[in-house]
Amino acid sequence: MQDFGLPSSQVYTPEIRFVDIDAAGIVNNATYFNYFEQSRISFFEPLLGKKWDWNAAGMVVARHEIDYRVPILFNDDVRIVTWIEHVGTKSMTAAYEVFKKKQGSWVLAAQAKTVLVSYNHSEGKPAPWAADVIEAAEGFGYGRPDF
Amino acid sequence: MQDFGLPSSQVYTPEIRFVDIDAAGIVNNATYFNYFEQSRISFFEPLLGKKWDWNAAGMVVARHEIDYRVPILFNDDVRIVTWIEHVGTKSMTAAYEVFKKKQGSWVLAAQAKTVLVSYNHSEGKPAPWAADVIEAAEGFGYGRPDF
Amino acid sequence: MQDFGLPSSQVYTPEIRFVDIDAAGIVNNATYFNYFEQSRISFFEPLLGKKWDWNAAGMVVARHEIDYRVPILFNDDVRIVTWIEHVGTKSMTAAYEVFKKKQGSWVLAAQAKTVLVSYNHSEGKPAPWAADVIEAAEGFGYGRPDF
Amino acid sequence: MQDFGLPSSQVYTPEIRFVDIDAAGIVNNATYFNYFEQSRISFFEPLLGKKWDWNAAGMVVARHEIDYRVPILFNDDVRIVTWIEHVGTKSMTAAYEVFKKKQGSWVLAAQAKTVLVSYNHSEGKPAPWAADVIEAAEGFGYGRPDF
Repeated sequence: MQDFGLPSSQVYTPEIRFVDIDAAGIVNNATYFNYFEQSRISFFEPLLGKKWDWNAAGMVVARHEIDYRVPILFNDDVRIVTWIEHVGTKSMTAAYEVFKKKQGSWVLAAQAKTVLVSYNHSEGKPAPWAADVIEAAEGFGYGRPDF
Repeated sequence: MQDFGLPSSQVYTPEIRFVDIDAAGIVNNATYFNYFEQSRISFFEPLLGKKWDWNAAGMVVARHEIDYRVPILFNDDVRIVTWIEHVGTKSMTAAYEVFKKKQGSWVLAAQAKTVLVSYNHSEGKPAPWAADVIEAAEGFGYGRPDF
Repeated sequence: MQDFGLPSSQVYTPEIRFVDIDAAGIVNNATYFNYFEQSRISFFEPLLGKKWDWNAAGMVVARHEIDYRVPILFNDDVRIVTWIEHVGTKSMTAAYEVFKKKQGSWVLAAQAKTVLVSYNHSEGKPAPWAADVIEAAEGFGYGRPDF
Repeated sequence: MQDFGLPSSQVYTPEIRFVDIDAAGIVNNATYFNYFEQSRISFFEPLLGKKWDWNAAGMVVARHEIDYRVPILFNDDVRIVTWIEHVGTKSMTAAYEVFKKKQGSWVLAAQAKTVLVSYNHSEGKPAPWAADVIEAAEGFGYGRPDF
């Protein structure tokens, strides 16, 4: 699937599971963060390789912010566009826009940002990004893509 | 809290979270197995000690069966009674009855059983239970308690 | 995707989310039931139409049983084959086999069955299946498919 | 339980379920928002009454922000202090501090804020808060409590 004319790793299509819908009949607000987790994995995998070990690698979530605009329902068709806003020595900001199909066109359903911190688990403290992470990010490019 | 005149480790009170309720307005059928997981932890902790490491210990779920009778709703008051039916050399059967308060009395909402297998993770195969597990189980006693 | 030479509605490919993996490093035993929920939706949708309302329709889970054989890991490639074993006047038994790719071939990872009951929510009791459910099931055929 | 010398409705004790722990061995970042959901319910229940219908009432999550400081582990003892920062005509800001016990003292594990919007589901748009919500909030008081 090729949406928005972007690389497929940058456009994640979440499966909206029946159980993701809460008692209010919409995707629970917490579940978006699981979708973002998958979006990041999808985004970084081609950059860092399938064997990227998410536990060892020490990319830790330090902050989230999200604005919900339009609720997501069970049969909705959803896409999440992910990009990197900025990479620092020990942190990185990822950003997302969540779209859903409404009467044939994509509507912005939510916007969010995550600050990720590079963490050395054996030393128990933040550490500079590995060179391959920085290179991959720079090669891909920063900021919201045009689409 | 002392319900049914049983040891508190044998009567687990699940928190019914808003997110546990699915689009049908009831606790999702899968979520019961998370309640049972907590019931088992609650049951075994006083027997095996707080420091019991659930990952290392190698108590693996091999089988579940469950009969749902009455759905659980958001504000329901729920208790899960847990016991051990039988302990074999490498396996064990736990059983549960789920009750909810309805017009002042406890109603059976579900019944379930779990077969647990003792697993040696370093060897990658089932292994006999550690002596302290058997002893703890025997000390506690087998079968559905009277209540 | 066409796996096992079966209709695509009968072969569900679950997304194994990072969050589906529990502290033991494997898909949590409860999460399988969410995969089965999606498998059933995928199975019934072409039979009953996209507009099938899962809340109104009153297909209620009355019983599950499952045998776990091989744990599912984060990057595993998984397929769930679903079929109907039997349809009664007010109940139905669905069955599943869960496979994962291991060194190039599909390995049976779990087997399960679900008893579904037809429920009239306005009357608050089981009710005979609607004619279109029976017809759809009969048209599709009963029992484990050859594959 | 009376922690921090605050009303019990303002100090929520989440159950840290085994399944809340993800493959990284810590409470998944998304799960905090389910804890906050329960914190809000616990906070508002004595103010608005047990029969407060969370679906009809139209308190919709419009925004979250969270800073994670110290990860939460399986056996951690956790408290979440909740308060209202501000109430507008159609929105409200709730704030939370998450503490965990570490070597005998409470350590700040996360801080978060949620913007809630009053929503009239039948009209499909934001609406002024019901008078009893405003009164309850004013009676309770705004801002981070001293503790």
